[in-house]
Amino acid sequence: MSDVNKVVLAYSGGLDTSVILKWLQDTYQCEVVTFTADLGQGEELEPARAKALQFGIQPENIFIDDLREEFVRDFVFPMFRANTIYEGEYLLGTSIARPLIAKRQIEIARATGADAVSHGATGKGNDQVRFELGYYALMPGVKVIAPWREWDLLSREKLLAYAEKHGIPIEMKHKQGGSPYSMDANLLHISFEGRHLENPAAEAEESMWRWTVSPEAAPDAAEYIDLEFEQGDLVAIDGKRMKAHELLARLNELGGKHGIGRLDLVENRYVGMKSRGCYETPGGTILLRAHRAIESITLDREVAHLKDDLMPRYASMIYNGYWWSPERRAIQALIDHTQQTVNGWVRLKLYKGNVIVTGRDSKTDSLFDPTIATFEDDAGAYNQKDAHGFIRLNALRMRIAANAKAKRG
Amino acid sequence: MSDVNKVVLAYSGGLDTSVILKWLQDTYQCEVVTFTADLGQGEELEPARAKALQFGIQPENIFIDDLREEFVRDFVFPMFRANTIYEGEYLLGTSIARPLIAKRQIEIARATGADAVSHGATGKGNDQVRFELGYYALMPGVKVIAPWREWDLLSREKLLAYAEKHGIPIEMKHKQGGSPYSMDANLLHISFEGRHLENPAAEAEESMWRWTVSPEAAPDAAEYIDLEFEQGDLVAIDGKRMKAHELLARLNELGGKHGIGRLDLVENRYVGMKSRGCYETPGGTILLRAHRAIESITLDREVAHLKDDLMPRYASMIYNGYWWSPERRAIQALIDHTQQTVNGWVRLKLYKGNVIVTGRDSKTDSLFDPTIATFEDDAGAYNQKDAHGFIRLNALRMRIAANAKAKRG
Amino acid sequence: MSDVNKVVLAYSGGLDTSVILKWLQDTYQCEVVTFTADLGQGEELEPARAKALQFGIQPENIFIDDLREEFVRDFVFPMFRANTIYEGEYLLGTSIARPLIAKRQIEIARATGADAVSHGATGKGNDQVRFELGYYALMPGVKVIAPWREWDLLSREKLLAYAEKHGIPIEMKHKQGGSPYSMDANLLHISFEGRHLENPAAEAEESMWRWTVSPEAAPDAAEYIDLEFEQGDLVAIDGKRMKAHELLARLNELGGKHGIGRLDLVENRYVGMKSRGCYETPGGTILLRAHRAIESITLDREVAHLKDDLMPRYASMIYNGYWWSPERRAIQALIDHTQQTVNGWVRLKLYKGNVIVTGRDSKTDSLFDPTIATFEDDAGAYNQKDAHGFIRLNALRMRIAANAKAKRG
Amino acid sequence: MSDVNKVVLAYSGGLDTSVILKWLQDTYQCEVVTFTADLGQGEELEPARAKALQFGIQPENIFIDDLREEFVRDFVFPMFRANTIYEGEYLLGTSIARPLIAKRQIEIARATGADAVSHGATGKGNDQVRFELGYYALMPGVKVIAPWREWDLLSREKLLAYAEKHGIPIEMKHKQGGSPYSMDANLLHISFEGRHLENPAAEAEESMWRWTVSPEAAPDAAEYIDLEFEQGDLVAIDGKRMKAHELLARLNELGGKHGIGRLDLVENRYVGMKSRGCYETPGGTILLRAHRAIESITLDREVAHLKDDLMPRYASMIYNGYWWSPERRAIQALIDHTQQTVNGWVRLKLYKGNVIVTGRDSKTDSLFDPTIATFEDDAGAYNQKDAHGFIRLNALRMRIAANAKAKRG
Repeated sequence: MSDVNKVVLAYSGGLDTSVILKWLQDTYQCEVVTFTADLGQGEELEPARAKALQFGIQPENIFIDDLREEFVRDFVFPMFRANTIYEGEYLLGTSIARPLIAKRQIEIARATGADAVSHGATGKGNDQVRFELGYYALMPGVKVIAPWREWDLLSREKLLAYAEKHGIPIEMKHKQGGSPYSMDANLLHISFEGRHLENPAAEAEESMWRWTVSPEAAPDAAEYIDLEFEQGDLVAIDGKRMKAHELLARLNELGGKHGIGRLDLVENRYVGMKSRGCYETPGGTILLRAHRAIESITLDREVAHLKDDLMPRYASMIYNGYWWSPERRAIQALIDHTQQTVNGWVRLKLYKGNVIVTGRDSKTDSLFDPTIATFEDDAGAYNQKDAHGFIRLNALRMRIAANAKAKRG
Repeated sequence: MSDVNKVVLAYSGGLDTSVILKWLQDTYQCEVVTFTADLGQGEELEPARAKALQFGIQPENIFIDDLREEFVRDFVFPMFRANTIYEGEYLLGTSIARPLIAKRQIEIARATGADAVSHGATGKGNDQVRFELGYYALMPGVKVIAPWREWDLLSREKLLAYAEKHGIPIEMKHKQGGSPYSMDANLLHISFEGRHLENPAAEAEESMWRWTVSPEAAPDAAEYIDLEFEQGDLVAIDGKRMKAHELLARLNELGGKHGIGRLDLVENRYVGMKSRGCYETPGGTILLRAHRAIESITLDREVAHLKDDLMPRYASMIYNGYWWSPERRAIQALIDHTQQTVNGWVRLKLYKGNVIVTGRDSKTDSLFDPTIATFEDDAGAYNQKDAHGFIRLNALRMRIAANAKAKRG
Repeated sequence: MSDVNKVVLAYSGGLDTSVILKWLQDTYQCEVVTFTADLGQGEELEPARAKALQFGIQPENIFIDDLREEFVRDFVFPMFRANTIYEGEYLLGTSIARPLIAKRQIEIARATGADAVSHGATGKGNDQVRFELGYYALMPGVKVIAPWREWDLLSREKLLAYAEKHGIPIEMKHKQGGSPYSMDANLLHISFEGRHLENPAAEAEESMWRWTVSPEAAPDAAEYIDLEFEQGDLVAIDGKRMKAHELLARLNELGGKHGIGRLDLVENRYVGMKSRGCYETPGGTILLRAHRAIESITLDREVAHLKDDLMPRYASMIYNGYWWSPERRAIQALIDHTQQTVNGWVRLKLYKGNVIVTGRDSKTDSLFDPTIATFEDDAGAYNQKDAHGFIRLNALRMRIAANAKAKRG
Repeated sequence: MSDVNKVVLAYSGGLDTSVILKWLQDTYQCEVVTFTADLGQGEELEPARAKALQFGIQPENIFIDDLREEFVRDFVFPMFRANTIYEGEYLLGTSIARPLIAKRQIEIARATGADAVSHGATGKGNDQVRFELGYYALMPGVKVIAPWREWDLLSREKLLAYAEKHGIPIEMKHKQGGSPYSMDANLLHISFEGRHLENPAAEAEESMWRWTVSPEAAPDAAEYIDLEFEQGDLVAIDGKRMKAHELLARLNELGGKHGIGRLDLVENRYVGMKSRGCYETPGGTILLRAHRAIESITLDREVAHLKDDLMPRYASMIYNGYWWSPERRAIQALIDHTQQTVNGWVRLKLYKGNVIVTGRDSKTDSLFDPTIATFEDDAGAYNQKDAHGFIRLNALRMRIAANAKAKRG
């Protein structure tokens, strides 16, 4: 066990991280700095301060930050510029929040002179990797304490016993067994894993979902919205410009109302196992669809294809925790370069789980040329005879091969 | 103009290809062989025979083939093994039919001793490329006649005038202006392009859609179905084994009923322009979702990621018409190799445009190991401490870099 | 034939482009502007002026530009930042010159109010594509005249007859049959194609090579040189800073002397055929080796691998003529981003065709950490036990798969 | 420490693995099975038997296998079908031997009922990963003992002290400090790392190299050889058919004589650090060049480019130890599929470090068509006018973009 003076703990105020707080104090005999972030998870943060004080944390060692705008502007939006999805389905809602938490934790460590950081992620999941790769990239000599990999409180019973023994308040829900899921939430999504979901053959219970109504329960009337983009980022909904996080919050509201963005999948974790996860990403689901639509008329074909070819790799980087890596930054340079022309609007119809693109245009950057695409007489804008040579030369290598084969019999 | 003896025409029996038939006879003074294929487009084919006879085609020169099973088994299913989508959205319904038509046309050319082939695709679209690359790959010396690139009947008026002059029967609908869309259909989809759709900012009319009800009009009750896969191919629905084309037809029925598979997009054509297209792919939309789901528990992570990385390239090959190319066959060899373990079942919920995966399992090939993935005590199946070294070494290069940077100040 | 007022011709002053000049005047009855570029091909350019005047070209319509610095700085060096090689071997010496010629021709067209451009590349090669894609990208409405695709002077005899008939001076070498090769030269390389090389089974004649001595004829003593790089570009040789083109000229001198940079290969042209080419790229061969070496200690592993993965695609873009495309610019943005840390020096040993890296270092950006890499005791800089968990988790998915297989028997 | 009954040790008979043998006996109190492989490293193996006996190993527990043919035929050749190089330079000589050793060790473990395996690779290198990923993939429950990560004999002094204390014979060379390099050899290469090489700025000493003369010391006369390929594999040299390992041995002899295949580089290890390595790969260097050459006339362009795009990824898989992974097998399926037409011969000139391709041909599979590629009149085999349309349509998207931009001003 390393010698630790001061540790910055990513602290939610909940049972698990409260036990960690106490365990850190006891085990490392060190000063603890708590850091609680508002990423739009929808919980009040002030109770975390009160709890921290109860553990004897110095007021100047309690950090509660509203990171919502930074989160959406500098993490979520850059990711959506790439139309990022992991394994064809997952919108990376948890993955994209971790690098920001790690960054802020390290900033606080520098500000408070701490030599260690700690988090509440388990030893089986992706989050420990995402947190710690961030820590190490930003502060290579930092000591990292991952209690779930160190202690022996590996069952819920042991955890509760430890809490009880150390006078950590246990809410009624925990006494009753706690949530039947492991959950994580931020402005982009809420996720559910574990327990009731551990059989991938069984349907998730309707009662699990939190942010969206079921498609069945959504309104019977469709709703149209207009999204406006500048340089690949959403800037306005229905003509109303807002800050990044306000826009995403509004999309969440719309998506949640219309039963949009539920997902139930089996994914491959970076640590090597398959895991079943359920996600609600109402706003992100709308945003992805819309971003692809605005790109469809403003992006050159080969640029779009290049992005599509790189996207799964970029998604894996984020999923695996490499946001702060040089390779992620290099790909981001390419992606951001391509978004200069991604300006315009998209009209969407939202209805019972469906996000339907009904129109898209760009006054400044449309590459759609109706005078060429038309099925009617185009007055010479396009010479159909050009296609003859185009096809002949594209076929040449195959014709040569077939000829050679035929000659040899 | 080349000297042509006998030409095999891809003949639908409709106005356009009837005009082409006549024009070929007049322009090239050559014998015409007609080939009409049933790909599940939902139209009767016998009328094509009658019309061909009216043009003086010899009965032995009239070929009407039911290619539905071959189409789905040897073209659609191999493509779905790769989870193929073009530009993030398009399911390639038209693209995948062309190589089969080209192949059969060439077979007929060989059987009838024809030296030329002809088709009714325009000089602006992708289909001319798909047909002709197929022709050239399979019969490198064949002469290709693409009337739309040769003649001067480039407006609907001229076409109708030509038909009238040559006694080609014109149905009422054509006199009234014809369809407001250019359409193509087969068992995988029906597509709409052109005319009313040429403004990508305007919503498509509800009356356009043919195969699917609108989500609004779909049943209020969801329907669950079970799909069974063997080696990556669908083999049974709700326990009932059917032939490939019967399965897809059944999925189309289910999807159409539940408002599934509509798509409205702007795509990039191989010939260099953007084009707006609307598609209905009810069965394919269900199939893609289900195939991904069965892969999610039966495919190794890195194999799945390799497939995802190659998919856009494979999709472009098919979109651009390179089905018969050696590079498509090479990728197919890889894809088919990966599908050996893709066996199992997927449960789906269909509801008003939504295809929701609710469960998946494989008795023979599941890689999901609940004893490892569990959030509960796993009795040592997984050693959480392993994650420490895993993260440390994955972070090493970034730590070295950050250290080096820090030392230099 | 389009109506042309004024055409800018890429004019070398040689026989072929002189015939073209005359043919343009006669065929299009248009004003001709000649453009002759010094790209380091090693020929005097003033004779081109005299010849142009003889054809009645107005002095203000004769452009002779020294583009050597721009060529190496803005085209060759950016390409080498990516370690670009086409098909594993070819250093793209011809390909990279074409976009600059096209750019300058279009600039001159704008400056002189010309509506057309013309070049002397044949209809079988890559150069026509490279020129014309550049023209169209930079001036989409420009008329392009490619005489070799239009006229009927397709044999050497007809060309000479035309020249004779129109009083175009024919040098003795042409009367004697001309060069046995089709050649192209600039500061990066000289190429040989065609004629004597058309049998790929036969060895090229020693007499063909121009810029390099044979390895056999090279000095018996090796020579060491030090190359210094800044942001991925060569900036000094043996401590002497020079301009980009001076550096490359110096490397050519060194390489030529030591028999470095000959290449004999069969390549795949963009127009669909295979072609045998021989190349001398003395300086480029040295530069590529050195650039990889400096990157080896200054570039992060994953960034280097990302570059390697993208390199063949980038090479194809340049080979195929897409320098001015948006996708090439997007990849360049990524590449240039990665080169910020590529600073340092490389020591090379040149000897009879060999370029041998003997040392490399970077004071400012080395990522080589001897305290970690050492085989000796590293005083805890690296914890070997970390490797245990690293391997265990990287193996996990394979272990799960093997276990699952074993269980099923 | 796990409970081990019987362990299979990869045993060279040298000092390090002898210490490991003894240490295993003492530490784990278990039966040891020794496995010594002939991979063409050029050392006698029988002394290993004698030593093992001295340690009390039962005769039936001593395995000495000649794996040379299997090594080259089933590992080296499949890898060369992909033209594999890691980081642009390294021919993977060590990497490709490890999976075979791992496979054989597991076979012996199964045959002898052993529950553990052990190797002598350190905790800093790639080889531990390559061995252990192989073990785990082939026998997921096997116990792995990596002494270098467990014991405290981390300096040479401690190792020698341990040997002395336990009566392990120490050769004079070890007493004198041992080799100044860490070396590994097999039929594909010999490698040097560590110690004298730990400063990447300093040139390697001439005395280090073992298998090749220096280019300076190589014969003054060049030597021509003909290599014949079938399905991508070398089958004969100068008309003489031999077994795989005999062919490679012959190429090593030729390359070594002519100073071919030395390499000095800094590479990125999988465990995250940069490392300087020197390699001699005489035969492999010749083989790679020749394989590319035979592919250049027998492989379709797009297939070749697909292989080039995948090669770095395939190389990383092998370098990182994933030979036995499903993703490596999937790529191999693609690669092997492409090699069906790679038949023919290549002529090479070997001279003082140079491998020069001078000719290549294939009677059965050449795609080089001189009637099309010719610069002379081709009698209509290729219609140059086709290039016009080819270029126009390839330029279309760029023209549309430029036009759109111009219109907007």
